[in-house]
Amino acid sequence: MPGKRYLMAPGPTPVPPEVLAAGAEPVIHHRGPDFRELMLRCLGRLQEVCRTKSDVLLFTASGSGAFESAVVNLLSPGERVLAVSAGEFGDRWANLARAYGADVQELRYAWGETPEPDDVRTRLEETGAAVAFLVHSETSTGVVADVRALAQAARDAGALPVVDAVSSLGAVPLETDAWGLDVVISGSQKALMTPPGLSLATVSAAAWERSARASLPRFYFDWAKLRDQLATGSTPFTPAVTLVASLDRALALLLEEGLEAAFARHAALGRACRDGVKAMGLTLFSPDEERSAVVTAILTPDGVDARELVLELRERFGITVAGAHGDLGARMFRIGHIGYYDVFDITTALAAVEVVLAERGADIERGAAVASAVEAYRAALRV
Amino acid sequence: MPGKRYLMAPGPTPVPPEVLAAGAEPVIHHRGPDFRELMLRCLGRLQEVCRTKSDVLLFTASGSGAFESAVVNLLSPGERVLAVSAGEFGDRWANLARAYGADVQELRYAWGETPEPDDVRTRLEETGAAVAFLVHSETSTGVVADVRALAQAARDAGALPVVDAVSSLGAVPLETDAWGLDVVISGSQKALMTPPGLSLATVSAAAWERSARASLPRFYFDWAKLRDQLATGSTPFTPAVTLVASLDRALALLLEEGLEAAFARHAALGRACRDGVKAMGLTLFSPDEERSAVVTAILTPDGVDARELVLELRERFGITVAGAHGDLGARMFRIGHIGYYDVFDITTALAAVEVVLAERGADIERGAAVASAVEAYRAALRV
Repeated sequence: MPGKRYLMAPGPTPVPPEVLAAGAEPVIHHRGPDFRELMLRCLGRLQEVCRTKSDVLLFTASGSGAFESAVVNLLSPGERVLAVSAGEFGDRWANLARAYGADVQELRYAWGETPEPDDVRTRLEETGAAVAFLVHSETSTGVVADVRALAQAARDAGALPVVDAVSSLGAVPLETDAWGLDVVISGSQKALMTPPGLSLATVSAAAWERSARASLPRFYFDWAKLRDQLATGSTPFTPAVTLVASLDRALALLLEEGLEAAFARHAALGRACRDGVKAMGLTLFSPDEERSAVVTAILTPDGVDARELVLELRERFGITVAGAHGDLGARMFRIGHIGYYDVFDITTALAAVEVVLAERGADIERGAAVASAVEAYRAALRV
Repeated sequence: MPGKRYLMAPGPTPVPPEVLAAGAEPVIHHRGPDFRELMLRCLGRLQEVCRTKSDVLLFTASGSGAFESAVVNLLSPGERVLAVSAGEFGDRWANLARAYGADVQELRYAWGETPEPDDVRTRLEETGAAVAFLVHSETSTGVVADVRALAQAARDAGALPVVDAVSSLGAVPLETDAWGLDVVISGSQKALMTPPGLSLATVSAAAWERSARASLPRFYFDWAKLRDQLATGSTPFTPAVTLVASLDRALALLLEEGLEAAFARHAALGRACRDGVKAMGLTLFSPDEERSAVVTAILTPDGVDARELVLELRERFGITVAGAHGDLGARMFRIGHIGYYDVFDITTALAAVEVVLAERGADIERGAAVASAVEAYRAALRV
């Protein structure tokens, strides 16, 4: 064993060598003209990736920090918000708003279910909530919601949609402006192919207007202060300059591939992973549909503890896949296929899962998964 | 010109190549055993550097984020706090607490003055503030306060000291436990020789006790949630894993040099810079005393605009020094000598300043600065 390592968790994701190298260049001063140029270029590229003409605000923080920025800049104490949740991250945003004293109404689904626009409309009409938290890609279950329709339902009911696109941005289609997404939150460490530590919020005109009235306290995550500085490529607080250099390089790679090509690749990767899993004889927890192309959640066969599988993959083969949150821990594991990923990463994961399950006596089909995955990928991309 | 660049601002500071390289290694999963081991080792090294047995909490955020964590975890709305300010950062912490609705009392000095323990004691007795914000190294002026005495004064008056050690930790002596500093805040990008993006807070038993009663809202910066996760080397939110790898490597370098040796080196660098500046015939804005060994603030000769000097150093020689904040912009510039720095960085800065000033017709002594700086360094370190 050469000690080779394979990162196949749904974030952080593998980072291209040239992106790592960009972050290893000598540190530059965050108030100098070279950093300002870098930051402005990076923000422009983020607007392209988010497909927005609105402001993109970049934070030195994880994605949860950027989501917190939305809470504290959009809400006043006691204000009513609807949190739509069908997994770990939906729950997190409800808890976050609750910590800030918002009146959090919930639209809850069982984990793995897909939120429905009609439910969102109904709950908003019932509650009169002014803001709706939506999750695009629920990393804990593999479900990618139809966020376009959910956001439309929110807007129809007079609520401002705030979208968690942490694991979806750059992997599956997301149109900030065309879909009327007032606030989109994402992080550097998923399909943007950058190490963790940066996160972003897009802010529409309506969101700016609301933020001017919102009275929750804010300082580090204050939007207006950040926007004023970012306009000249600067920041109110020392930013993670090496991560910005990495992000800028990664965005260049993504835009060079082209967003549509990246979406098609992710769709094909998802198809490949799901077809491979099914060919092996395993059961999907993720929905078997094209949109859910970010992470594939899989149930282990009876008698195989998913936590042991995850451990063995890592210790024996250097492969990191993710376990499941909460009650699903013993039964489910997740393969992320986000960002710097091709079909042979999928085949690596499937081949390794296959050997471990076979050795544990699971009733699976040998050899079928890899062939199915490659064929599905070829068919999906027509290559 | 080979395009060589010299970073001599008081943060971010130059990062050793091996620290940059550590951050360019493949990204690892933040829930895996290798990251947990890395994080626990890093936290242990931070305890050594902070000289504390208390918890050290590590945030993916700039230093201002870590300071915000102290505000929201220690205070309740309307609670009274004393902010001691003699520069940019002292003012920032007052504004931060004000943004969170604290009753901020101030002890203000002119920029460049050194806060006095008796003033702190008196103001605390007058105001009855329960928490005192102290700045160890005021980066905007070069003053390093006697934070041991200031903290003792705060404790004598029954207030809990919170210390901004962003630019001082690892550069000048700081004893978290021995000096009774209940909370110490610092960042990765100064004497810890790491790129920006990580920051820390040490939390004493008394600070934990106070935080249990404090009712300001918090989520991303919640101390208790972070402590519980860090106990096993994990974090509530995806941390900046590559920066943690860099920080761990940098801390190893710092501890290998030895903290006392690093303090002596910084004292000698400060001595060298100040003696060189004086030999050239320039006037110090920084106090000419041993403690203020982090950044040297210098007034330009009459007729030379400091902003033009800063610009010319950068454009012509690739040397980044810092300008001054606020009203001092035209008259003052600052040379940082923090972290990965030796005397030949000082001589580089002084030689370049000398040539620019001479060409602009300033009445300065040619050739004296570099010789004085090297001699002062040798004498201070007895090498």
